Amino acid sequence: MTELADLPATDAARRLREGSLSAAALTEALLDRIAAREPTLRTFAWFDPALARRQAAALDAARAAGRATGPLHGLALGVKDVLDTADQPSQYGSPIWAGHRPRADAACVALARRAGAVILGKTVTTEFATRHPGPTANPANPGHTPGGSSSGSAAGAAAGFFQAGFGTQTAGSIIRPAAFCGAVGFKPSYGTLHRAGMKVMSESLDTIGLITRTVADAAFVMAGLTGGDFGRPEARPDRAPRLALCWGPTAELAAPETRALLERVAAAAARAGARVEALEMPPAVAAGLAAHPTVMNGESAEALAWELDNAMALLSPVLREAMARGRAAGPAGVAAGRAAFAAARAAFADVVAPYDAILTPAAPGEAPEGLGWTGDPAFNALWTLLHVPCVTVPAGTGPKGLPLGVQVVGGFGRDAATLAWAEWVRQAAA
Amino acid sequence: MTELADLPATDAARRLREGSLSAAALTEALLDRIAAREPTLRTFAWFDPALARRQAAALDAARAAGRATGPLHGLALGVKDVLDTADQPSQYGSPIWAGHRPRADAACVALARRAGAVILGKTVTTEFATRHPGPTANPANPGHTPGGSSSGSAAGAAAGFFQAGFGTQTAGSIIRPAAFCGAVGFKPSYGTLHRAGMKVMSESLDTIGLITRTVADAAFVMAGLTGGDFGRPEARPDRAPRLALCWGPTAELAAPETRALLERVAAAAARAGARVEALEMPPAVAAGLAAHPTVMNGESAEALAWELDNAMALLSPVLREAMARGRAAGPAGVAAGRAAFAAARAAFADVVAPYDAILTPAAPGEAPEGLGWTGDPAFNALWTLLHVPCVTVPAGTGPKGLPLGVQVVGGFGRDAATLAWAEWVRQAAA
Repeated sequence: MTELADLPATDAARRLREGSLSAAALTEALLDRIAAREPTLRTFAWFDPALARRQAAALDAARAAGRATGPLHGLALGVKDVLDTADQPSQYGSPIWAGHRPRADAACVALARRAGAVILGKTVTTEFATRHPGPTANPANPGHTPGGSSSGSAAGAAAGFFQAGFGTQTAGSIIRPAAFCGAVGFKPSYGTLHRAGMKVMSESLDTIGLITRTVADAAFVMAGLTGGDFGRPEARPDRAPRLALCWGPTAELAAPETRALLERVAAAAARAGARVEALEMPPAVAAGLAAHPTVMNGESAEALAWELDNAMALLSPVLREAMARGRAAGPAGVAAGRAAFAAARAAFADVVAPYDAILTPAAPGEAPEGLGWTGDPAFNALWTLLHVPCVTVPAGTGPKGLPLGVQVVGGFGRDAATLAWAEWVRQAAA
Repeated sequence: MTELADLPATDAARRLREGSLSAAALTEALLDRIAAREPTLRTFAWFDPALARRQAAALDAARAAGRATGPLHGLALGVKDVLDTADQPSQYGSPIWAGHRPRADAACVALARRAGAVILGKTVTTEFATRHPGPTANPANPGHTPGGSSSGSAAGAAAGFFQAGFGTQTAGSIIRPAAFCGAVGFKPSYGTLHRAGMKVMSESLDTIGLITRTVADAAFVMAGLTGGDFGRPEARPDRAPRLALCWGPTAELAAPETRALLERVAAAAARAGARVEALEMPPAVAAGLAAHPTVMNGESAEALAWELDNAMALLSPVLREAMARGRAAGPAGVAAGRAAFAAARAAFADVVAPYDAILTPAAPGEAPEGLGWTGDPAFNALWTLLHVPCVTVPAGTGPKGLPLGVQVVGGFGRDAATLAWAEWVRQAAA
């Protein structure tokens, strides 16, 4: 029998709806799991079991009183600590913001509460969702990084601490850690979740998304948050997809296990009926990727203008260096980079049109050893600047026994279809 | 002799640089002006003369000690109260945020301080920069609205309270109040100033800009803030422009004085050598405009999710109604609206390419009587969703003797040229 903490969100929601499970009981199961593993995994930047219990009890009481609760009634969410919470500190992974208590919830957190979710805690982010790591360890092997910057949401979702974790992605901060931890990561089309109350760094890139244990859960929670249609990935499509296998402009960075993985998944998809073609990106797409660091660092340096001028000594050296490069690019450099992004998006829209989805690596390989480096977003930055929906699904393990993911990407706005084909690919490769 | 409070920013900056004017003396002149007129105009949501004096004194001391100060050394800025300030309350025009003290400055405020500006005070915004008005009156006639939502920045800039006021525009919140108050309004290309630390409502639309007394001042202050090239509008171009006269999809809302104004300005520009052609917008552009309310209200309702769920009774009825409409549109409606925006931008890029700039109304007519309604953004929302640079320049008065403006619009990213042609048009029509 599956432990309660391991129940997918879809199953837990059904039991909560039917009344065979209470929010309090589910929360207790999660708290037990957390008590057992959090000392090793260190996923939370802030966590108060009593507050979680109070939220769950209030939801049960509302239900018992016949008051309407939402589609995510009783489910637990971890919230990356670049997203504000009114009842919990919001510290953005930086000592500059130690003890900060926002007056309001971020928009996506308020939507989660409206939908009936328990906001279980704030999950570890790297410093301002950039490179300097937090203390979180990988549930599959605590000697390895969980990836970043959504480190706590990825490790916590994989470990059964909550049904879904909010993540954010500027380069590869949802997809990479989800793949490293053996979870599902979903970066929706840019703009799907409003960034009000987020510590935004790059306005052109930052995208809020989710890390879950199943693709169906990602769709279910997104629909519960937004009221939008993210489909039912668990319902098998009535045809096989047209897929493109795309290594992208950073192909040479794929480790041998990643090359073998993608070839295995592509072959399995073909055996299951998919048409799989190799896809080369046009030059405009590679030019967009070349501009990614300039736009990311240039916009982030403007976002952090107050921190740079008032608390420089509390920024990590790696962030100070990135911000210096960003400021050196200047507004003309950033504007040229944004124009390259727009050209890349236009070119990609034509390239992707004949396909249902693209298969591409989620990361170069397994999670690197140690907690000092969260890994390379080389296979993620492109899709972030293209603003398109991305899903990573677990697909076996690498030479060290750590999880590998395969990334499925769709056209802008085709989020429901991309989730559905991601689940199709996962099943085909299983 | 021009009073110090009426000195353009470019002139004041030169005198400050040369040492013939101190930041303290300039600030005192502004404080005198404010003391005389603020009781009538009510431009400030928060204002502390002692804090302004301390900032000015610190800047003079830095200069005297030979320390580098910035390009805006000693100039005073008014900051619309949807932008965070670490040393002053930030209340967003809403009782929900009464007394709120952010820990950090908004990015654009931090850039202003870095450039050496005095942050003189927080200027009145309508409720969350939407429709419910604040108490500000029009300096040209206090029985009339200054327009909104950047009410205090427009009235204060026109009245000589500061050299420049930060404004923000979602529909018409920079250009309309600037025109109503006889000031210059500049909405840069979307994304020019980072929105970190702004109370963002519509992510697809909200744009930070400036209200000043001269076009040259808008360019000077923007360059001082960003380091970018906004040209020197005061340097006369060596040729006359190719202009398009465009009434846009809302032509029938222009008052007779506005029709006469545009025809007069177009004729004057032609006499000065400009080629002026009538321009009709393609259907995709009108379709984009039709989607504006859906995207604005839909995104804003998500931005205000926390306020809606925790403090509904403290929202104005007009905002509650707009947010209900926004929520009714749903994510699919908002996504369709954003797609219409993207199509409008692509169509407009082709339409504007043959021209240096477009002449179009800044507002339907003069500022409406009374302070209960800030006027109609019907001639502004289109250019906001197109993300293009817009400048309004003063151009005479209407039948009640109130200021009129004419709006000059350019292609995306052509901010320096648009400012230059706006000044050219202003001189031609003078």
